[in-house]
Amino acid sequence: MSVQKRQIMQVDEAITKLLEVPLHGTVEIISLEDSDGRYLAEDLIAPHAVPPFDRSPYDGFALASQDTKTASHKEPVMFQVIDHIGAGAVSQRVISEKEAIRIMTGAQLPRGADAVVMLEVVKEHGVDAFELSRQINKGENVSYKGEDTKKGEIILTKGTRIHPGVIALLATFGYSEIPVFKRPLVGILATGTELLDIREPLQPGKIRNSNAYMIAAQLRKLGAHPVMLGTLSDDYDHTFLGIQNALKTVDLLITTGGVSVGDFDHLPRVYEELGATLLFNKIAMRPGSVTSAARFQDKMLFGLSGNPSACFVGCELFVRPYIVSSFHARKPHLTMMKATLGADFLKANPFTRFVRGTVTMNDSDIQAVPAGLDKSGSVSSLALANAFIVLRGGTRGWKKGDAVYVLLLDGEGSEWPWTVLLSK
Amino acid sequence: MSVQKRQIMQVDEAITKLLEVPLHGTVEIISLEDSDGRYLAEDLIAPHAVPPFDRSPYDGFALASQDTKTASHKEPVMFQVIDHIGAGAVSQRVISEKEAIRIMTGAQLPRGADAVVMLEVVKEHGVDAFELSRQINKGENVSYKGEDTKKGEIILTKGTRIHPGVIALLATFGYSEIPVFKRPLVGILATGTELLDIREPLQPGKIRNSNAYMIAAQLRKLGAHPVMLGTLSDDYDHTFLGIQNALKTVDLLITTGGVSVGDFDHLPRVYEELGATLLFNKIAMRPGSVTSAARFQDKMLFGLSGNPSACFVGCELFVRPYIVSSFHARKPHLTMMKATLGADFLKANPFTRFVRGTVTMNDSDIQAVPAGLDKSGSVSSLALANAFIVLRGGTRGWKKGDAVYVLLLDGEGSEWPWTVLLSK
Repeated sequence: MSVQKRQIMQVDEAITKLLEVPLHGTVEIISLEDSDGRYLAEDLIAPHAVPPFDRSPYDGFALASQDTKTASHKEPVMFQVIDHIGAGAVSQRVISEKEAIRIMTGAQLPRGADAVVMLEVVKEHGVDAFELSRQINKGENVSYKGEDTKKGEIILTKGTRIHPGVIALLATFGYSEIPVFKRPLVGILATGTELLDIREPLQPGKIRNSNAYMIAAQLRKLGAHPVMLGTLSDDYDHTFLGIQNALKTVDLLITTGGVSVGDFDHLPRVYEELGATLLFNKIAMRPGSVTSAARFQDKMLFGLSGNPSACFVGCELFVRPYIVSSFHARKPHLTMMKATLGADFLKANPFTRFVRGTVTMNDSDIQAVPAGLDKSGSVSSLALANAFIVLRGGTRGWKKGDAVYVLLLDGEGSEWPWTVLLSK
Repeated sequence: MSVQKRQIMQVDEAITKLLEVPLHGTVEIISLEDSDGRYLAEDLIAPHAVPPFDRSPYDGFALASQDTKTASHKEPVMFQVIDHIGAGAVSQRVISEKEAIRIMTGAQLPRGADAVVMLEVVKEHGVDAFELSRQINKGENVSYKGEDTKKGEIILTKGTRIHPGVIALLATFGYSEIPVFKRPLVGILATGTELLDIREPLQPGKIRNSNAYMIAAQLRKLGAHPVMLGTLSDDYDHTFLGIQNALKTVDLLITTGGVSVGDFDHLPRVYEELGATLLFNKIAMRPGSVTSAARFQDKMLFGLSGNPSACFVGCELFVRPYIVSSFHARKPHLTMMKATLGADFLKANPFTRFVRGTVTMNDSDIQAVPAGLDKSGSVSSLALANAFIVLRGGTRGWKKGDAVYVLLLDGEGSEWPWTVLLSK
């Protein structure tokens, strides 16, 4: 597994390889109140119709349309008001000829009525009568039982992400306990003698372990449960044992650093000694070309770069779809969109670049501008970025005004953007 | 405050009125690990430079560029390797003439060195020497101290939303405790005799209180802390006392239902009896035209419609910017984008419609299609929608292929989309 043997793989190929050995989501039942952002583990059906009964969508009078047949300005029809109901009340009365019931929005249509006339249409005679001077059609101003959803219909499918609108639907049908996919436990192990904890003061030659905190936040955002396992110094045995131990307690493991070809990059040898199956260790992308994945028994090991930006990109491009696919989500990848490049980016590269960028949507178009310093070690650019600008590999640089694709860091996700993103 | 007196207000006017009496965010200190999605309450400065020292961005040999001046293919220069350091180690040696130190990515540049030559460029003679056959410039392959961030620079400004990239930056600088704006306590009180709890079986004429659960999820998503205060039946005194009590314990209060002009719509009278200042109670929009806001002492009362879709829209258009502005966020409104209408929508309306829709981004364009049933009482459309399609009020309907604006429910937010959205 020396540098010479590394085979370059395209981003889409690498993701395909990952998803061929998927993480299988397991199911748990949680309260509706705790279900934000989780993914449904089952199709759910409507246990009853919605609306659950014929109801009035307005304030008005419920009546039988039949009785309005002759109504006109010249010969208005007089109705007797025999009851008065608000939403939640059910009238015990049945409407007979030329009778009506005063009904408020959301109340159940009384027996004998097949239409509602709005308050402003009639001329009231006290509280007990009104005259109507136009014909009302059957079904006018009635929200019929089941017009929104029929009993037994599938209302939500497995893999649906639970957002406020979904919660509204679940509550409507009385789903208070929800089957969702469990958050997988994802171990995070940072390797590198240079790493200090964020609570330690700086020391010569050392930097703080920002990657672990960053990845933990990325994982929480995509619905996994990060487990911070600390740092490993650049000692081979220490690294091997640390990884071997970590694998016992988590569903998958992310390491940062140690995946390149430097003298202290131990991960390739660790994979070998574990007997893990290497999926990839060199991707045709910048930053993060050393991003690696290997499979140990039923667990995936992701070896991300120790460079903050490269690490971030590796997590979003590879770890994200691997985990989100375990929730059966239909759009596990970052959200792809078209944009106009707002600044020159003249450095050509044979590999496809994922430049941290800022996408601005304004009245006329969508502009994407590189954010901060474009070096794989840059961290300030990560704080500014809301997207990756995808600059396909090739021999030329890119110019302001060029049409590009971007991958948004916030958004609903894409189904499979790679065919579009990587095609020449 | 009867129906006749209601003054129609445009959406942007109503929001302007709200933001003239802003909610003032208060500050708390939380752990970095708990800060996802929160908003910084202060500008933060860099307590040190990043990188904190000159370092090597590659695996190679650190040397003095001066010594390479004469190097060429014909006359390569031989260097002695006097030390070997990985990231985190600091060499105790100082480079003298024709000396070099083997250095790994991330390690501090040794004293006496001013450039790094990459491993693959040299011809190694065992571990102690190599020859170099080209000139190396001063600063070549050196990441200089402070090139990413200088000490004392403002790294993040007040109002920044904390996402994984921001967390990376905070961790880099050792910010383990973060000043953020507190989540305001937002009471949710549903009014209506028809409302059952989500854990109750259906009863004739009644429906479950889905709005409170939906709003709670909307509030959590935008960073507030919902307080579920139950339901109030359509009895005036009960409603008045319930609201008066609720106001004592929360920072702002949302009610659902009771804001229209029906016989049991008590909210207008409650506002009056409380002595609250009405901001608006009729908006030129569909759904949710009865959306109301009133100010009682230093607290805002939002009166949202009882219809699920109208309630949802009212929360996103009005409650969202009111709360998110208290975090000093620069983009407190829903994310505006241009799209192509993917289906006819022929019902003309003098009011601007916010149609629940599904926005799909594909290779060629961004399509927006209405989701499900377009009635204010519809709830299934909310589960499907990822955006509002904004159809400006007027005398004509809208056709497939028309250019429209959409407001995305997921996204970074917009600064002030209203000028664009509502202009003719």
